Amino acid sequence: MLAGRVIGVDAGGTKLLAGVVDESLTVEHRAHRLWRGRDRRQVLDLMVEVVEEARARAPDARAVGFGIPAQMDRRRGVSLGAVHLPLDELPFRDLMSERLGLPVEVDNDANVAALAEQRHGAARGASDVVMLTLGTGIGGGLILDGQLYRGSMGAGAELGHMVVDLDGPLCGPGCPNRGCLEAVASGTAIGREGAEAARLAPESPLGRAAAEGRAVTGAMVTELAHDGDPAALDVLALVGCRLGAGLSALVNIFNPQVVVVGGGVMAAGELLLGPAREEMERRALPALRNSVRVVAAHFGAESGMIGAAVLALEARA
Amino acid sequence: MLAGRVIGVDAGGTKLLAGVVDESLTVEHRAHRLWRGRDRRQVLDLMVEVVEEARARAPDARAVGFGIPAQMDRRRGVSLGAVHLPLDELPFRDLMSERLGLPVEVDNDANVAALAEQRHGAARGASDVVMLTLGTGIGGGLILDGQLYRGSMGAGAELGHMVVDLDGPLCGPGCPNRGCLEAVASGTAIGREGAEAARLAPESPLGRAAAEGRAVTGAMVTELAHDGDPAALDVLALVGCRLGAGLSALVNIFNPQVVVVGGGVMAAGELLLGPAREEMERRALPALRNSVRVVAAHFGAESGMIGAAVLALEARA
Repeated sequence: MLAGRVIGVDAGGTKLLAGVVDESLTVEHRAHRLWRGRDRRQVLDLMVEVVEEARARAPDARAVGFGIPAQMDRRRGVSLGAVHLPLDELPFRDLMSERLGLPVEVDNDANVAALAEQRHGAARGASDVVMLTLGTGIGGGLILDGQLYRGSMGAGAELGHMVVDLDGPLCGPGCPNRGCLEAVASGTAIGREGAEAARLAPESPLGRAAAEGRAVTGAMVTELAHDGDPAALDVLALVGCRLGAGLSALVNIFNPQVVVVGGGVMAAGELLLGPAREEMERRALPALRNSVRVVAAHFGAESGMIGAAVLALEARA
Repeated sequence: MLAGRVIGVDAGGTKLLAGVVDESLTVEHRAHRLWRGRDRRQVLDLMVEVVEEARARAPDARAVGFGIPAQMDRRRGVSLGAVHLPLDELPFRDLMSERLGLPVEVDNDANVAALAEQRHGAARGASDVVMLTLGTGIGGGLILDGQLYRGSMGAGAELGHMVVDLDGPLCGPGCPNRGCLEAVASGTAIGREGAEAARLAPESPLGRAAAEGRAVTGAMVTELAHDGDPAALDVLALVGCRLGAGLSALVNIFNPQVVVVGGGVMAAGELLLGPAREEMERRALPALRNSVRVVAAHFGAESGMIGAAVLALEARA
């Protein structure tokens, strides 16, 4: 890997995280932003802003790595399409390199998270790894035979858009499908199920919070579940079961040694991952389920940012 | 590849097909069997019998390749588990090589079908290929970056056991899951839906055949659909839609250039594949659906047998 420091940027559906990362993966000078507007100019300006903030503290940074929630043509550094941000048909790498005056590497956000976890995190040493990042949406990354798998154009591993419920809810903008894993097991889905649970249990802490007019989000459900609210715990168990059905499919398809689950939603920890693991074990083929570990991301919500930095460090090795 | 001839054997959930195959993939001396009994001894004896029949006509055959419907530990040639045949924890390669007195190669039946189609068939020249074999069950094979993908133990690509309907019907013996692609879109599922359609439309040709006491099978539904029976056509369109939902997941996950659909059920041809392709196009991510072809297997119901031969030919190249 490159000696010296780089800047890693993880652009999620809701927020942006940058950090200065050295070759031992020590992170300094973190910078956060929430998206202010969603047109393309605002999105790209905020990306430049967050990089410049980090760079002001680390003028020696030699390159920038981005993880973006898009289907990528990796060879050309072009974003082909994105569900949560206006990044369709955008020559991202060249455009950012021009604006920043630094070498830029870019890949799908969940791909780089998988890279971080397999090289240095929870799946260290494993040759076959499935990574899911649970946030506003669900991203997927695959390490197969030790290599990041990107599909024929580099646009593969959209594991969040695997159908698990044929007639389930419509998926997000940018995805025409219904019953995708993302539609039933993302942070957004936890918020939706939480609102329904609040309606059905108005005396629960969740019900009372909703009655006070607070928006029921995945984060709120998770917080109340950690405080012991049975209604909130039931929501995480329900969504965890659906996640587990998706995990059983991934285990049967990929026969991985490790499945790593990360992203902001993993603030729920074992309250979500426990039911998911149990459901996977009920559903997956016996010969496969016994050889896989399902674990939380080592780098937590920073897998994507650190993975984006690893991408930049490895590209210049 | 090896000069000279080998014997390829495809062991399906219902029947067994062997053939003598040369390096130009010309097939001679085909031999068929239906399983007579399902205990392990009967199954293995029939495999030996069909090979010996082919070998009697081609005493120069130098090796035998098997495709079997099992999760394999490919390195050791051991069958770890199987849904439709009693092949759990069986050192298949060594045992067969001992009994036949010939070098034996063995892999999952759908893996070898994928190999045949990508090397010499409908997906020739493509680097990323998904293969589904529709029969009694559904098998899956993956060519990723030009290589057969087998997972960490060699047991991957069980694409038929991907959940597409969370609360759907229970899957087969050997699979504890419900709502697997196999449970809703295999030949078995076509038979089940056909029986239901016969009940609802007793005056249709399908309904009359059932009333005569004939068992409603996938093959019967397909035959009547080709004759124009609207009830049978509706069954294939329904099952085709479910297949298409599964295809959308596979396209989103793998970003393949080609999806090849083979197996005995493809006797239905475009009556099944047409609705499946349309549903895939409605559901898959726009950036991915436009770069994939969904096609019938070039080698038809012989992809598995020819692929098993290719495995043996390539292993001794």
